[in-house]
Amino acid sequence: MTRFALTLEFDGAPFMGLQRQSHGPSVQQSVEDAVFAITGERVAMHAAGRTDAGVHARGMRAHIDVMKDIAPFRLMEALNARLRPAPVAVLACEAVPEDWHARFSCIGRAYEYCIINRRAPLTFERGQAWQVPQPLDAEAMHRAAQVLVGLHDFTTFRSAHCQAQSPLKTLDRLDVHRQGERVLVAAEARSFLHHQVRSMVGCLALVGLGRWNEDRLIAALEARDRQVLGLNAPPDGLYFVHARYA
Amino acid sequence: MTRFALTLEFDGAPFMGLQRQSHGPSVQQSVEDAVFAITGERVAMHAAGRTDAGVHARGMRAHIDVMKDIAPFRLMEALNARLRPAPVAVLACEAVPEDWHARFSCIGRAYEYCIINRRAPLTFERGQAWQVPQPLDAEAMHRAAQVLVGLHDFTTFRSAHCQAQSPLKTLDRLDVHRQGERVLVAAEARSFLHHQVRSMVGCLALVGLGRWNEDRLIAALEARDRQVLGLNAPPDGLYFVHARYA
Repeated sequence: MTRFALTLEFDGAPFMGLQRQSHGPSVQQSVEDAVFAITGERVAMHAAGRTDAGVHARGMRAHIDVMKDIAPFRLMEALNARLRPAPVAVLACEAVPEDWHARFSCIGRAYEYCIINRRAPLTFERGQAWQVPQPLDAEAMHRAAQVLVGLHDFTTFRSAHCQAQSPLKTLDRLDVHRQGERVLVAAEARSFLHHQVRSMVGCLALVGLGRWNEDRLIAALEARDRQVLGLNAPPDGLYFVHARYA
Repeated sequence: MTRFALTLEFDGAPFMGLQRQSHGPSVQQSVEDAVFAITGERVAMHAAGRTDAGVHARGMRAHIDVMKDIAPFRLMEALNARLRPAPVAVLACEAVPEDWHARFSCIGRAYEYCIINRRAPLTFERGQAWQVPQPLDAEAMHRAAQVLVGLHDFTTFRSAHCQAQSPLKTLDRLDVHRQGERVLVAAEARSFLHHQVRSMVGCLALVGLGRWNEDRLIAALEARDRQVLGLNAPPDGLYFVHARYA
């Protein structure tokens, strides 16, 4: 048996999410079905993050255990051939020790959220960014974001369906910067709560629009109450970009 | 009557091209139908470039003549509302003098061609870039590209269907640079022949792959013969990015 670590890129638009779902297509099912077509083996894929419906990845890490004797490069090529036409690509594939676990060995996760700040509707980036038509003050968003960095109870920024035992998380980085019409939010932590990045981005957008100030954001954080969340940003703009391992 | 200059962005994938066609959807038809829905007027749109099926634009310029009294901003908003779900967006709209012509007043056109140089299939950029799996030497491509800059007979790099009277064109700029897995080609000229950018990019890719050298490219140019063209790059990677006016 060989454990293979995969680096995945996928457009989340057509999927119900990364994890296998009974009610629709998932990234996990696409990969597992491709492995079955190649090896005849029914494997279970484990991933660093369990992204929601419509959320994308540029560098998701995952692992699968395969009995068949196959070289990493050949497995990657075969997976990419079998994954078509699903918008999932294997960017890298390597054999790893059997105690390496894509989810449990992961010590850092990085997300990027892409807002396109313009009046005109999206063309190329439809489903791949959040279009905000009113002008956003990215600098004000960045300043306010620093309130959220550090160890906090993120109950306000957590989905009602979150399964984490504790709402306490340490947010290592939350940077906002403008690149032309794009406003990009970079978030890093050991791990995140369900909907945490989208909830933080939604509230930062309210700050960027001038509808919330920093005090309002602090009050929302301190309230530890999902009811005071200003806005949950749509999944379209969210990308899992990197998983870090020791 | 007011002449409005439009700046258009469009994903060319679902279109038969910019110009109205009897056999399928076009960008021109989408815009003209949107104008009709707003004003009841059947206008004719003129554009700076007549891009092919599958070719995109980030900054195409066009003009329409409208009788109805309407402010540029309101026309832009109404067009964007009516253009949905076609992947065409009006980025800017302004009233211009009646002797301003999107095509005939244009004194410079800029295209960008996007190659994604990696083995893995495309996900987000499917239909929006040319995937080349073998490693490309972008520096060799840039050096070779300089052979094509200047005034030349571009017969080799011209479609058999090209309607231009002369194959003589002055190419002002042809730059190739790598940005991570992307190899971007920037081309500027007063005007281009039909398929010229795609034909040049196709041959430069052969240079990047090491299958052609600079001498072979010079020979192809000097042959003035479409039969010696090495490769016509697919439309997917081509973007009309800018039109220049006096």
